[in-house]
Amino acid sequence: GCSSDMGWGDLGVFGNPSKETPNLDQMAAEGMLFPSFYTANPLCSPCNLHAPGHNWGHPGFELLLPELLKKAGYANMIVGKWHLGHQPQFHPLRHGFDTWFGSPNCHFGPYDNKAIPNIPVYRDTEMIGRYYEDIKIDRKSGEANLTQMYLQEALDFISSQQASHQPFFLYWAIDATHAPVYASREFLGTSQRGLYGDAVREIDFSIGKILSHLQNLGISNNTFVFFTSDNGAALISAPEQGGSNGPFLCGKETTFEGGMREPAIAWWPGHIPAGQVSYQLANVMDLFTTCLSLAGLQPPSDRQIDGIDLLPVLLQGKLIDRPIFYYRGNEMMAVRVGLYKAHYWTWSNSWEQFSQGIDFCPGQNVSGVTTHEQEEHSNLPLIFHLGKDPAEKYQISFASAEYQFVLERVSPIVQEHKATLVPGQPQLNVCDKAVMNWAPPGCEKLGRCLKAPPPDPKKCFWPH
Amino acid sequence: GCSSDMGWGDLGVFGNPSKETPNLDQMAAEGMLFPSFYTANPLCSPCNLHAPGHNWGHPGFELLLPELLKKAGYANMIVGKWHLGHQPQFHPLRHGFDTWFGSPNCHFGPYDNKAIPNIPVYRDTEMIGRYYEDIKIDRKSGEANLTQMYLQEALDFISSQQASHQPFFLYWAIDATHAPVYASREFLGTSQRGLYGDAVREIDFSIGKILSHLQNLGISNNTFVFFTSDNGAALISAPEQGGSNGPFLCGKETTFEGGMREPAIAWWPGHIPAGQVSYQLANVMDLFTTCLSLAGLQPPSDRQIDGIDLLPVLLQGKLIDRPIFYYRGNEMMAVRVGLYKAHYWTWSNSWEQFSQGIDFCPGQNVSGVTTHEQEEHSNLPLIFHLGKDPAEKYQISFASAEYQFVLERVSPIVQEHKATLVPGQPQLNVCDKAVMNWAPPGCEKLGRCLKAPPPDPKKCFWPH
Repeated sequence: GCSSDMGWGDLGVFGNPSKETPNLDQMAAEGMLFPSFYTANPLCSPCNLHAPGHNWGHPGFELLLPELLKKAGYANMIVGKWHLGHQPQFHPLRHGFDTWFGSPNCHFGPYDNKAIPNIPVYRDTEMIGRYYEDIKIDRKSGEANLTQMYLQEALDFISSQQASHQPFFLYWAIDATHAPVYASREFLGTSQRGLYGDAVREIDFSIGKILSHLQNLGISNNTFVFFTSDNGAALISAPEQGGSNGPFLCGKETTFEGGMREPAIAWWPGHIPAGQVSYQLANVMDLFTTCLSLAGLQPPSDRQIDGIDLLPVLLQGKLIDRPIFYYRGNEMMAVRVGLYKAHYWTWSNSWEQFSQGIDFCPGQNVSGVTTHEQEEHSNLPLIFHLGKDPAEKYQISFASAEYQFVLERVSPIVQEHKATLVPGQPQLNVCDKAVMNWAPPGCEKLGRCLKAPPPDPKKCFWPH
Repeated sequence: GCSSDMGWGDLGVFGNPSKETPNLDQMAAEGMLFPSFYTANPLCSPCNLHAPGHNWGHPGFELLLPELLKKAGYANMIVGKWHLGHQPQFHPLRHGFDTWFGSPNCHFGPYDNKAIPNIPVYRDTEMIGRYYEDIKIDRKSGEANLTQMYLQEALDFISSQQASHQPFFLYWAIDATHAPVYASREFLGTSQRGLYGDAVREIDFSIGKILSHLQNLGISNNTFVFFTSDNGAALISAPEQGGSNGPFLCGKETTFEGGMREPAIAWWPGHIPAGQVSYQLANVMDLFTTCLSLAGLQPPSDRQIDGIDLLPVLLQGKLIDRPIFYYRGNEMMAVRVGLYKAHYWTWSNSWEQFSQGIDFCPGQNVSGVTTHEQEEHSNLPLIFHLGKDPAEKYQISFASAEYQFVLERVSPIVQEHKATLVPGQPQLNVCDKAVMNWAPPGCEKLGRCLKAPPPDPKKCFWPH
């Protein structure tokens, strides 16, 4: 499971004062909690599908987890948000998935403006409708039964795979916690946290249903389950539509801990011992390698793979020494080595955004750290001890022996990383209205095809 | 148990990323967690002894919990910090305690300056030495075995009470988390969080020992245990010597949530169902009333009592509608009603302190809320929804219907509270070096008596 824009601090087990996630908390009590689990990029993006080995080629060169699992006989389903492109060549069924119920992107607007297409919802190869037009999300009340639909799809897929005795991979990518947030009628108004909390509660409820379904079918000890998020809570949407990053600094869009540290729980009864907390530094790319390992497969050998196999961590409680890199686009902003984090660049949000009231660090201001210019510190990175100072408030003095010690440890790791890095080709820099979802496959049957404007490529503005 | 200066966010169960409090987390799993539990005042003060009914008289008029429990046949012990005065008339053995091992105040300095007396440590009526001179705390390494001494005292007292079949009240008031923080050698360097975390780990270890001791003696189902703190983490001492207030605003000294919301766990196997979370708004004064109720006693009827009896909450999961008042000295700064909090006054720290680098809200700045003047908002209190906005960042607009609705609900509660309030006589406004611990009882035997200067009463400055 991967919940879009859910923050580290949204789960009871990670200290949300509302303590409204009994199922996820129970999942942690029965499995392994990762307090230091990271996303690869603080933006909406697929959680765990990529093999973004850092010798990027054209996107078609990238291999996705389901493509490889397919070779080992797995049936693969994606439920929910794809977010790896909506054009035909990017369709999930061309990249290893056998079946899909969901949408190529979040449930953004324009809500009811027919001049720009709303995001379509697909059943496998064809669209079945569009958000706000056919798939209802009441923007006033926040009511939508999408999470229930996604839950039912997951349960049905699991049932059918259990019946056919075929191994399966289910990527359950719900987005009720992504603004505009939504919840089903039975969850509306049930949270202390307002609509955002209603969405969290419904996701928590659904996770409970999925886990108990696995148990009822007798396949829980044969099914590895991992729950996480794609980036930190979007604080620009808080408090009504955004989550919590707990004690961490800033949120989505930034490479501070609030932007990139994620809730993460592994569950596999009979294999992962119950009630464990792992201090392993891990990230979403590890799920690629780990899932391959579970299926008895090796990662592709023709490229550098960033993810590590977490099985020794999960099954034997081992700790693997490895750094975490914090990227924003193609820029390595920071690196974590052990309990230390070194910022080579800092940026909170631009003055232009800030002056418009867009603030990714509301109520937070750490002088020289939450900078409104993207400031370079490559010569003297800003170093923090995340054990003593998880909120990145107390920079270690440049003059201290500790600073010197850390820098000497971190520098060669960064140098080695950069030496083996081949920058990827940015996929999000060129936007063109002509390639929006004007006429997705299946639109004819529904009478939902729209006429695309002529091509007009421009530099993108990405608020999310 | 009451841990001085421990913050809400210091426990794993309240989301500390280090997850280093397995015993307290287990205590919560076996008992009831209170995410909305408050202290009465954001300063070092006794946790739960007072009956500070708001018709204060002279301090002698105040009744303490052990004085009342004594009448029901309880043996009462205080282990650790007293902090209700060090002059003879304030001695805990004059206020209901039968035995004491600890000190009248925190382990402040002057460390080795004999010109001002160090805080003495008492065994019952007499001092057995002074901090830093006889009771060692290594300020460089942070090593001190005090928590182990306090643990042993607690275990011995419990054993002896179990053997004599006499009911008991143990007030275990440890202060290893109060700067200068300390830990025993076996805990030094064991935490991801540095010395502060070592202190937390040792307290957590000790709580585990106490609970298992009760179980081993077969009296756990006959013993009500409550764990909390006296105020929020002292952020001026962070990150080396101060704790975490999780997602909350500011810390000790302030009436924001970080200053007054406390970690709180109730444990009573066989009576309090396991794994409960109570959303009851509660505070330390309730422990007075609740403990009396447990002992079959009524609170004194000759005065207003602010604490409520939590037994229906603990035993039947009920929720009692009641406000929480946030005091700083004699000023009612704020009130919480349900999920709403209204600030009638705001203050973070003075410009004078701030300009000296003293900041009770490091890295946090909420415009118009974290004010450096004590600003009055009695006509239009600043209102926050703590469910959606536990960090007090998003003030509800004065112009909104929600604001009007809340104000109409809160105003009569505040009016009624103020109408029945008789301000107490401030106990901390006059300081006099002459009444320090120059010659505590027992000093003669040890050759530790110091000569007091002539009386010189002055207005106090209280940094803590």
